[in-house]
Amino acid sequence: MQQQMSLITLGIADLARSQRFYGGGFGWTPVFETPGIVFYQMNGLMLGLWPQKDLEEDMQRGGLARPGAFALAHNVPTKEDVQIVLDRLATAGGRILRNGDAPPHGGFRGYVADPDDHAWEIAWNPAWPIDAQGHVTFGI
Amino acid sequence: MQQQMSLITLGIADLARSQRFYGGGFGWTPVFETPGIVFYQMNGLMLGLWPQKDLEEDMQRGGLARPGAFALAHNVPTKEDVQIVLDRLATAGGRILRNGDAPPHGGFRGYVADPDDHAWEIAWNPAWPIDAQGHVTFGI
Repeated sequence: MQQQMSLITLGIADLARSQRFYGGGFGWTPVFETPGIVFYQMNGLMLGLWPQKDLEEDMQRGGLARPGAFALAHNVPTKEDVQIVLDRLATAGGRILRNGDAPPHGGFRGYVADPDDHAWEIAWNPAWPIDAQGHVTFGI
Repeated sequence: MQQQMSLITLGIADLARSQRFYGGGFGWTPVFETPGIVFYQMNGLMLGLWPQKDLEEDMQRGGLARPGAFALAHNVPTKEDVQIVLDRLATAGGRILRNGDAPPHGGFRGYVADPDDHAWEIAWNPAWPIDAQGHVTFGI
């Protein structure tokens, strides 16, 4: 089967609050937006923001917890950008979990929680090339 | 900033068990694999499987919960594929949350939990084109 992920949907509590973080912090523009759901066109997949109750109903499973055991990552072009982006996201309603520093495996990264406590890693990883469309490839 | 997600990392409990699901169920091949982490090259981003304790340590936040308030999705080419893939994933160690049926917004979908209770939606969505590299575009 195609190694393909079409969508990641985050269960959220307040769509306007999330849009301040994703629009105001990351500077992203939705490709589709209603009072009930927002989609962002990402690099070969979609990011969806959906009220948690609707996600639970669609999934037929209640009691989803936050923060969950996962992290999303956004890679930036330079080491210096890591802290700049973390700070910008904190100003837009996020909460810094770890300020930028160097992990043992190389590069530079920090973590920020979005308004619903979903974690984003902001990383500079020169080993993973990113093309003009944002497609990320595994390097060495 | 680029509308780009470079990586989604799932916190897992048993790497071999997860690889049976992702390798045996989805049929995906890792691009990088050690006893401590596995990466799959996806459509313009990476999927990482990492023991939850390592993710928590890197994030400097403990107590991450499963299942979390999110869902990943994999789109299939035909309506009939939805249940076939759900069943195959259940055989590979997953647990079906919702068998395939038609949501109000169109298409056809079901949900399956991976061995760590992370949710995957398996969807047929003719409105979102997928190219040969697996890049998914928002349609109408």
